[in-house]
Amino acid sequence: MTTTGPGRPRKQQPSRPGANAREEILDAAAELFTTQGYANTSTRSIAEAVGIRQSSLYHHFGTKDDILEVLLAATVASGLDFARIVSAANDGEPISAGARLHAVALFDGTQLCNARWNLGVLYNLPEARSERFSSFIRDRTELRALYQRLGAALPENGWTATGQNGDLAFRLVETLVNLRADGLSTPESPLQAADAGIVLSGLGTHLAAIRARSAALIADFKA
Amino acid sequence: MTTTGPGRPRKQQPSRPGANAREEILDAAAELFTTQGYANTSTRSIAEAVGIRQSSLYHHFGTKDDILEVLLAATVASGLDFARIVSAANDGEPISAGARLHAVALFDGTQLCNARWNLGVLYNLPEARSERFSSFIRDRTELRALYQRLGAALPENGWTATGQNGDLAFRLVETLVNLRADGLSTPESPLQAADAGIVLSGLGTHLAAIRARSAALIADFKA
Repeated sequence: MTTTGPGRPRKQQPSRPGANAREEILDAAAELFTTQGYANTSTRSIAEAVGIRQSSLYHHFGTKDDILEVLLAATVASGLDFARIVSAANDGEPISAGARLHAVALFDGTQLCNARWNLGVLYNLPEARSERFSSFIRDRTELRALYQRLGAALPENGWTATGQNGDLAFRLVETLVNLRADGLSTPESPLQAADAGIVLSGLGTHLAAIRARSAALIADFKA
Repeated sequence: MTTTGPGRPRKQQPSRPGANAREEILDAAAELFTTQGYANTSTRSIAEAVGIRQSSLYHHFGTKDDILEVLLAATVASGLDFARIVSAANDGEPISAGARLHAVALFDGTQLCNARWNLGVLYNLPEARSERFSSFIRDRTELRALYQRLGAALPENGWTATGQNGDLAFRLVETLVNLRADGLSTPESPLQAADAGIVLSGLGTHLAAIRARSAALIADFKA
């Protein structure tokens, strides 16, 4: 093999989604981390999967942890953006507040289910819970807190402390990761998880109205 | 170091729970797998944590996978035993059926939360989903199916297919693994997960009666 620098042509034609080498590296790493395991994946095997030299990979990422950090951040980024906007405008009126919690869960769950690789399976890795990933941990904690805040704005639900509404919805959305890993998720699974959060909050009789307003919140955000 | 066989005295006094070396190996492995990661843990480091030689460890377990297999099996064994018994006697009467689903969830969730190490964090490991662990996968699939069967015996819940009642309860119980990994589980968390399964099934108005009958089913099993 001859030595090639980061700017040289790649050994193979790109076969992965991604506009550039960096995105192809992220996609290959996501595939290997989720199918072979994080500790079992070397930067060398990631480079091989992309069809570039290991030295070229280091031009984009200093360490394997740097790749994992970017991938983990991407699992919460859009859900967190949406949750910040939607929770900031909360007026506390029950159906409106229910629609906000529903929309956050549906948006978040949809991206967890539709992402090309099921990176949520890495959440419970001891590695992902280390100080090295404090930025991801902080984002996920903020997302959880926004669910909790939205849930706390709902009326008494008759069976548990109202502060738990949002946390249960957050947890139901994260079960989509396991459901997907088990090969059991369907296109309806994110909506079912969001609906379940509302039923647990005691607003099940308003589900049709809440769904409609939730869909409108998501459409507004995407517009 | 001198060579010692499996029957020789161990290098250190036992410092771990377990009546014998095998149980101490399992405890040490569970600690290392959940805190350092599975792939990052060698049989050598497990032996060191127990205070025995690696050769002594091989007297009890041929490979690291053999240790993981026993540990994973233990996370479902007692819940599965209980679920088999409780679901076999199901008479289909709604409160009785609700109490059975509640009891299975409460029993299963309690053992997930009270086990010395949070081994459920290993469920999503790519390694744990390989053919090598088909026995564990089969047990967990049977447990899920028993939840589903109990849920399917409940009346229409007004918001999702009745076949989903049990599956949502199963998923809520598994969220206890993440909750524990996040340092957020409390002694009430298993009961809350079991209650949530009942509320989602549309039997929330009968929760007090269902809780009482669920507690009786568990007490009978333990007696």
